[in-house]
Amino acid sequence: MLDARRDFTRDEYRRRITALQSGMATAGLDALLLTTPADVFYATGFLTRFWESPARPWFVVIPAKGDPVAVIPSIGAHLMRATWISDVRTWDAPHPTDDGVSLLSETLADLVTEHGRIGVPKGHETHVRMPLKDFERVMARIAPRTVTDATDVVRRVREAKSEAEIDRLREVIALTHRAFDRVPEIVAKAPRLDTVFRNFQMALLDEGADWVAYTAGGAGQSGYGDVISPAAPEPLQSGDVLMLDTGAVKNGYFSDFDRNYSIGPLSDAARRAHETLWDATEGLLHSIRRGHTAKDAHRVLSDAIVAQGYPKPVGRLGHGLGITLTEWPSFTELDETPLVEGMVLTIEPSLEVAPGKILVHEENIVLRADGPELLSRRAPREMPEITL
Amino acid sequence: MLDARRDFTRDEYRRRITALQSGMATAGLDALLLTTPADVFYATGFLTRFWESPARPWFVVIPAKGDPVAVIPSIGAHLMRATWISDVRTWDAPHPTDDGVSLLSETLADLVTEHGRIGVPKGHETHVRMPLKDFERVMARIAPRTVTDATDVVRRVREAKSEAEIDRLREVIALTHRAFDRVPEIVAKAPRLDTVFRNFQMALLDEGADWVAYTAGGAGQSGYGDVISPAAPEPLQSGDVLMLDTGAVKNGYFSDFDRNYSIGPLSDAARRAHETLWDATEGLLHSIRRGHTAKDAHRVLSDAIVAQGYPKPVGRLGHGLGITLTEWPSFTELDETPLVEGMVLTIEPSLEVAPGKILVHEENIVLRADGPELLSRRAPREMPEITL
Repeated sequence: MLDARRDFTRDEYRRRITALQSGMATAGLDALLLTTPADVFYATGFLTRFWESPARPWFVVIPAKGDPVAVIPSIGAHLMRATWISDVRTWDAPHPTDDGVSLLSETLADLVTEHGRIGVPKGHETHVRMPLKDFERVMARIAPRTVTDATDVVRRVREAKSEAEIDRLREVIALTHRAFDRVPEIVAKAPRLDTVFRNFQMALLDEGADWVAYTAGGAGQSGYGDVISPAAPEPLQSGDVLMLDTGAVKNGYFSDFDRNYSIGPLSDAARRAHETLWDATEGLLHSIRRGHTAKDAHRVLSDAIVAQGYPKPVGRLGHGLGITLTEWPSFTELDETPLVEGMVLTIEPSLEVAPGKILVHEENIVLRADGPELLSRRAPREMPEITL
Repeated sequence: MLDARRDFTRDEYRRRITALQSGMATAGLDALLLTTPADVFYATGFLTRFWESPARPWFVVIPAKGDPVAVIPSIGAHLMRATWISDVRTWDAPHPTDDGVSLLSETLADLVTEHGRIGVPKGHETHVRMPLKDFERVMARIAPRTVTDATDVVRRVREAKSEAEIDRLREVIALTHRAFDRVPEIVAKAPRLDTVFRNFQMALLDEGADWVAYTAGGAGQSGYGDVISPAAPEPLQSGDVLMLDTGAVKNGYFSDFDRNYSIGPLSDAARRAHETLWDATEGLLHSIRRGHTAKDAHRVLSDAIVAQGYPKPVGRLGHGLGITLTEWPSFTELDETPLVEGMVLTIEPSLEVAPGKILVHEENIVLRADGPELLSRRAPREMPEITL
């Protein structure tokens, strides 16, 4: 049922695996063990929402040389065999006492010599998606082989997107724009926050999203309290700023940007805050270059906000984007990740309009050799007004 | 922004925590460390789609006595403080070198005596949602305190649903039915599999889902190849069986059942297969009782299918349902979990109509003292026909 027309070419996958294997060689790794939806999708093209069920673990092992091996529940065999992966080993899951432990151990023992090192992403922004007890059992079974953190090997490859990936991101960002264009009509029709969330998700689907993995937002007088809460059945009121942020997915790639709308006339406080965020973003769009670090980007945004008299912003002010809603790096004061060509990034400055009231602005870019290319269509500097 | 009207009462949370603490006492645990969206939601009511971002870990610690403590990124403080939890400790995440490691270690050291035991779900159908390297760092910092698997403590409590939970499940199942009722119209309007998936998700939202976490299905002549693939842009054809399965969410609770439709006249093979699945389900609905085990339920379904001349079905034939799409137990040949009052379960028999072609049927029940109560509205024994 996988649609071959939507899949990447075999060359794209070979490029990824070659790049991962090159990083593995540098790190002295004899295999890489992947367990998360994003890493498995990246290596194989295996795309399913079935990960939503926590019942079954899924594994892909990338040897030092040669093609990846999938070690998966038999329910996924049909779909995995439709990808470019030819070595697909299955067990009948869920199994209460041996849920892939033996098959994974045998596969690792098969691919890695006895004193070899196996890389597993164990670092920042990762987790091992399998029962920890089973991970420990596998480690014991394959000893004296050792396991070492491979976060950097994976992230350095995933961070720099290919043109094929950028095309996919462009597509999902474009459909997200079409849904944002419908927000004034959505709000006018039913100006209640939970209904707006619901109808915005419907618009994203209607405009071509395969699914909507994330919708967040907020509304409040001249700003909102937070940006991660589910929507309450609160009527929107004149003077509110409404923010919507998404998370649509098409062909496995995510959009992630927000838009702010003024319900009724824009207050001076909200106008100044939005212009400050817009200008901060504009400043970074003019200055961001490969070779800078994530913390350089943070500083440009933070300084521009502080210069306008706002408190220094907290949290991160941008991040990577691709096959998860957020990826490495993070625009924080401490993240020294070098920015490289091909990185797709969100620029996401936020500021405190008043105590407990914030405003967030977000755009998506790809970093090119000579600077950023906008993937999202630049928001207007003046927040658009929606008349109820 | 949390809607207090949708939240559970404080008594409901106290019941849960008391039950967990009772299980902890039996297991000799001095604290329970929770890291996943479902476990955190269960203990606190903290509900957000922000988990979609893998960037930040989130922790809840349940001490042997007293209320849970949340140890979370500051971006979640506003929402967590709107729940019943009063002890909310935050750090500014993501932090590249100390992403909650110190704060979590201090909290555990604070709540657990030096030789205490901390429970972490490490078993079947669980994972630890934090970087494994950070988990290992926390373990080293809090030594000589030890960590032990607490899967059973958590699952025994989560498995038996309260009436408040069953009401929520009833609500999301009811809206899912309303969307299924619209499938003939959806198909007639645009009979292409990917469009049907998209419009079915829109119908679920329109009928009141907060979001659609899962949609799967398939279509093919008298049966489909698998049930986890994304939908291809394939036109539906006369003789196809179309199956849709979802995953809608309302107030944090999931529906999970499917429906089959015949595109044009029903073939004899598909009719007999659907009737066999329906009859197998009917048999289990008449016989399932608390005190049986998950494998007893599997046997009833499997025997009924084999008795009609089909191969013995593979994989599981039902599972728990609640705050994730699938929960323990699994109706397999090997799962000896005792079925208890209050369990919400899917009955999900499948069979092979012909080599490589399957049919799956699914209903949702709650197990009462005297037998099952259907939560889904029973599917018709004869598969409904949709005329193109």
